[in-house]
Amino acid sequence: MAIVAALQLAPVLGDFEGNRLKAATAIREALTAGADLIVLPELATSGYVFETVDELRAVAIPRDHEIFTEWAALAASRAGTVIVGGFAESGDDSELFNSAAMVDADGVRTVYRKVHLWDQEKRYFTPGNEAPPVVQTSHGRVGVMICFDLEFPEWTRIAALGGADILAVPTNWPYMERPAGERVAEVQIAMAMARINHMAIVCADRSGIERGVAWNEGSSIISADGWVIAAVGPGVGATFATVDPRLSTDKWLAPLAHAFDDRRPDLYKKFTPAK
Amino acid sequence: MAIVAALQLAPVLGDFEGNRLKAATAIREALTAGADLIVLPELATSGYVFETVDELRAVAIPRDHEIFTEWAALAASRAGTVIVGGFAESGDDSELFNSAAMVDADGVRTVYRKVHLWDQEKRYFTPGNEAPPVVQTSHGRVGVMICFDLEFPEWTRIAALGGADILAVPTNWPYMERPAGERVAEVQIAMAMARINHMAIVCADRSGIERGVAWNEGSSIISADGWVIAAVGPGVGATFATVDPRLSTDKWLAPLAHAFDDRRPDLYKKFTPAK
Repeated sequence: MAIVAALQLAPVLGDFEGNRLKAATAIREALTAGADLIVLPELATSGYVFETVDELRAVAIPRDHEIFTEWAALAASRAGTVIVGGFAESGDDSELFNSAAMVDADGVRTVYRKVHLWDQEKRYFTPGNEAPPVVQTSHGRVGVMICFDLEFPEWTRIAALGGADILAVPTNWPYMERPAGERVAEVQIAMAMARINHMAIVCADRSGIERGVAWNEGSSIISADGWVIAAVGPGVGATFATVDPRLSTDKWLAPLAHAFDDRRPDLYKKFTPAK
Repeated sequence: MAIVAALQLAPVLGDFEGNRLKAATAIREALTAGADLIVLPELATSGYVFETVDELRAVAIPRDHEIFTEWAALAASRAGTVIVGGFAESGDDSELFNSAAMVDADGVRTVYRKVHLWDQEKRYFTPGNEAPPVVQTSHGRVGVMICFDLEFPEWTRIAALGGADILAVPTNWPYMERPAGERVAEVQIAMAMARINHMAIVCADRSGIERGVAWNEGSSIISADGWVIAAVGPGVGATFATVDPRLSTDKWLAPLAHAFDDRRPDLYKKFTPAK
């Protein structure tokens, strides 16, 4: 069993040091609350609404940056703890990536670079070219993808087929109007992806208005059956739920129906246009 | 603009003649209400909960059966009307298919054979091997798939990339418990599929307890934005909504974000396991 935490933070654009502190404080509180798997928002260390590449470059960090040493030290306070959080990554050749790190007591386990860049992100970031990682942890196999990635079911499927029991999804969902009484559209999508793949999904969204942009504040923990079992709601905060990663390994939907084996990959290949 | 109708019927197992009459009556009422595109449930002519293949064979019909002549005659009463409904199909070599016919005034435009068979259906039906058809009609390009097909986003994507503005989905969703206040899980999935592909989706579910099996009665019309704009609710009935198929042709989600062009097909190919 894993106690999962989704942290809804309000990073401040360009204030790396302040954001580092906010993240560390929130991680510490989640650990105190007993969390085993802690998910932070996308670009939690940098803010999001960049207007120039220089702004972004000023807060971009390499994957061996000391903030991850700090996260590892925090994770070490509880055996097996895993932290997943988004950051602006400066790669080789001065390329910039919208990335997420998975950190445990031993340090950085993996870094994922967002493959599907949303809107203006395309002006500043280089898209990733690697599959969503799936890492065996003390709390099940944890996959990582970022925000808009989740709106491409092909990508979620790759993580699920790759064995992810729990998918950790740092996000920044810009506010969008929705009909009264309706859930955040992206949460709706995450629920469907969870159910279709029988895989738990943890989305950590952000808060705090940035250059006029508000956010959906949709941080949610979703069971492998596709139901929201915990959500933060408006404002900065955290939500927790107990997730049994073993439930995700059973892909039988009925005596003769199976989420994976009932796929028809040959037909998908045959009928999906190449471009 | 198209006035779309989802008809939630209660077919009776094995009573082809009674089911034919029910369908004809409901189609006639929908036409009176002004419907341009009318969607009936899966296996609307046969019932669903078969226990032997002989039961199924007794109500299976070829695609040139006179019921479709009747539907065509009904469709002819309003210019451009399209009817999509599920039936048990007897094919060549005495194979049986869970199929849906699209019929207009000229007769059968296409027949689709369900590719992803749910649970016990595998004991009676042969799975289809052809892509979901997408047909140009007077009310936009209409795609067809059936029930469990919708839980394979690879398949929905093929219909969307094939140009479907409105996806017509005859279904029989067996009743499943859900948390209080939650929508039918399959409707949730349909909403996500609509939004991800920016394509309207019409699901016609069934009613009426059959051999102890109840149904989710989830018939819904979903906009290309992924919101339920009309639903039947419990019992036999019909629901109507106006859908502009042209809205589905615009796949831009933001100035630099596009539902189709932001896909990364090369990566999907590279990282999706062959089996």
